[in-house]
Amino acid sequence: MIKKDTQGVTFAKGFTAAGVKAGIKKSGNLDVAVIYTKTKAVVAGTFTQNKVAAAPVYVSKEVVATGTAHAIVANAGCANACTGQQGLDDAHKMAQIAADELGVNADDVIVGSTGVIGVNLPMDKLEAGIKDAVANLSADGSDNAGRAIITTDTHSKSVTCEFELSGKTVRMGAIAKGSGMIRPNMATMLCYITTDIAIDQALLQKAVSGCVEKSFNMISVDGDMSTNDMVIVLANGEANNAKITEENADYQIFFDKLMMLCTELAKQIAADGEGASKFLTINVKGAKSFADAKTVGMAIANSPLVKTAFFGEDPNWGRVICAVGYSGADMVPEKTVVKFGGITIFANGTGATYDEKALAHVMKQKDIVIDIELNMGQEDATVWSCDLSYEYVKINGEYHT
Amino acid sequence: MIKKDTQGVTFAKGFTAAGVKAGIKKSGNLDVAVIYTKTKAVVAGTFTQNKVAAAPVYVSKEVVATGTAHAIVANAGCANACTGQQGLDDAHKMAQIAADELGVNADDVIVGSTGVIGVNLPMDKLEAGIKDAVANLSADGSDNAGRAIITTDTHSKSVTCEFELSGKTVRMGAIAKGSGMIRPNMATMLCYITTDIAIDQALLQKAVSGCVEKSFNMISVDGDMSTNDMVIVLANGEANNAKITEENADYQIFFDKLMMLCTELAKQIAADGEGASKFLTINVKGAKSFADAKTVGMAIANSPLVKTAFFGEDPNWGRVICAVGYSGADMVPEKTVVKFGGITIFANGTGATYDEKALAHVMKQKDIVIDIELNMGQEDATVWSCDLSYEYVKINGEYHT
Repeated sequence: MIKKDTQGVTFAKGFTAAGVKAGIKKSGNLDVAVIYTKTKAVVAGTFTQNKVAAAPVYVSKEVVATGTAHAIVANAGCANACTGQQGLDDAHKMAQIAADELGVNADDVIVGSTGVIGVNLPMDKLEAGIKDAVANLSADGSDNAGRAIITTDTHSKSVTCEFELSGKTVRMGAIAKGSGMIRPNMATMLCYITTDIAIDQALLQKAVSGCVEKSFNMISVDGDMSTNDMVIVLANGEANNAKITEENADYQIFFDKLMMLCTELAKQIAADGEGASKFLTINVKGAKSFADAKTVGMAIANSPLVKTAFFGEDPNWGRVICAVGYSGADMVPEKTVVKFGGITIFANGTGATYDEKALAHVMKQKDIVIDIELNMGQEDATVWSCDLSYEYVKINGEYHT
Repeated sequence: MIKKDTQGVTFAKGFTAAGVKAGIKKSGNLDVAVIYTKTKAVVAGTFTQNKVAAAPVYVSKEVVATGTAHAIVANAGCANACTGQQGLDDAHKMAQIAADELGVNADDVIVGSTGVIGVNLPMDKLEAGIKDAVANLSADGSDNAGRAIITTDTHSKSVTCEFELSGKTVRMGAIAKGSGMIRPNMATMLCYITTDIAIDQALLQKAVSGCVEKSFNMISVDGDMSTNDMVIVLANGEANNAKITEENADYQIFFDKLMMLCTELAKQIAADGEGASKFLTINVKGAKSFADAKTVGMAIANSPLVKTAFFGEDPNWGRVICAVGYSGADMVPEKTVVKFGGITIFANGTGATYDEKALAHVMKQKDIVIDIELNMGQEDATVWSCDLSYEYVKINGEYHT
């Protein structure tokens, strides 16, 4: 249903996009993106919960508060975080430049930045880049826009989906970037979703908040949480479906599709964690509460000892059960079952007998499923993560290398 | 006052110790330790808060509950954790073997284990080792005992101190092991402290609990918390000081010395974190509460992005202020000041102007002090940690290498 598809944010009717090189990234790669809908869209979003939020987060929250938007302008290479009043002025100016070029109001322009913290935006380069991007807006521009917002990601993430609502075809698509600093409550993660659905703004906000909670907030690369995260949805109504104004069947269909889209992107982001060589799916079952289930999943996902064990293809269930034990969730060792790739390796308070060859085969895979059965209650949660490799240390410690 | 001193646990009057090779460690190094006092000692201790606690933790808690002990027997190379009923039986048998050799009761013998989780103790080797150790108990045995309890530590930690209580000389000494899996609430950390002070058991317990809270519980290597941790104090009264039975001036002197000893060992453990190339002292000042101050310190200490930045000698204050922001502690970016090596690098919500050469010099040091001034209240906390290096990943991911 959800397709990996470079049409991304231009798949839905009425949206154009562009990504250009403005010289902000040291690499010289694409670094400024613009997404635009001529038909004014309702806008909803969720933002980092870090108390040190970047200037574009403040500015974009104001835009979401107005309920509508025409465009998104984003850059990579500079986060415009911890930049004080100058940073806020620059973020507002960034919106204004795009607004002027597009012929819309500045408070209809979402702004996003990602990259180094503590450095001011190079406004001259940025201004030229935004003008260039607006001049190049097209229905084929999503791929470049997606590549313009990535940082240490090895590839841009882009998906689309299409579904029917009472005989009308509705389209939705997205681009996202992730990589390091990814964990619940969102970390350097930008996700821009466009759809031509007609929907009430409050319901769009409710849908995106609900979906982010069980998708982007369920992934962890390294336990760090960034200053710049945002998930934004623009819905311009061009699908001409009966406008969704209550939580009816159409809302539920849309919600399910949005959840699938967010989950797919969240998994792609976890799998592309900095230096990741393994993609870990951690299913926690039978917890007393969803919070407990998530706590257990996150304790495993954030444990450097677990992560390095998977990097080394070591079926070290001791580190996993140890993380479950210190997570803080309600658990009893003797009731807990741990499986790697469906093979039971811990039960009844101790190691289980298993087929070593079969388990070695599981550990060699790129995708590994860890099941934790707590047998304490009825609540489940799934957390997605990755391993911790030499490459992670290299990427994040390479200042002098 | 606190001396690095291989006399360790045999510095206080009446204690002997030994460390022998029993063939439990794959390396063939020393792996069984015994510490003994002929004069029965009062005993106090603190243990891991992990819900998956190892068998020796259960057994030693029972010994502490009796209030007295004659001996400690510990091994490295096998944690006897997640070993079910067999593990408990083995831990009890381990105490019994030592008790029989020493001519004391089994419930007067503390047991400790560290090493791989999920593997049963090799009881034959262990029995021979314990007998060998008891036969070799001596006033010179602390160094070997200290080396017998280490795992991936690069060296054993051993300290002593001596002080006067109303004209009587009191001695105290300790051995400890740490390395990976170190974080608050204790992680694979064993610390055995002996002293000849005469003190009431309840006050000894109060002192050790209070000291652990601000020393061993303030360090973090990788945020993991082990199944096997314990800090044990034996006090045999041979100093003949006026027995401490209330929180008088003598108690305060003892408490201060114990705090200094625990703090010194905690710092040595953090500095010897797995693969560590930097020792980080994180002073958090002006928090609304001690809990907030500790939360901020731990968020910085546990951030892989901060840790890899220090490994790379990168003065990346952005990652530090980001961790302060997501820690959950009450903070306002504009009020917060961040210093590395005394040099202010973040203030007024943005990066400060600083002497780049001087800061580069700070980053090259092995010991680096990070100051976080929250300016929110009067509470302070200090957390000790280390960087995250290639070597950490190698040590913990080397299963197939």
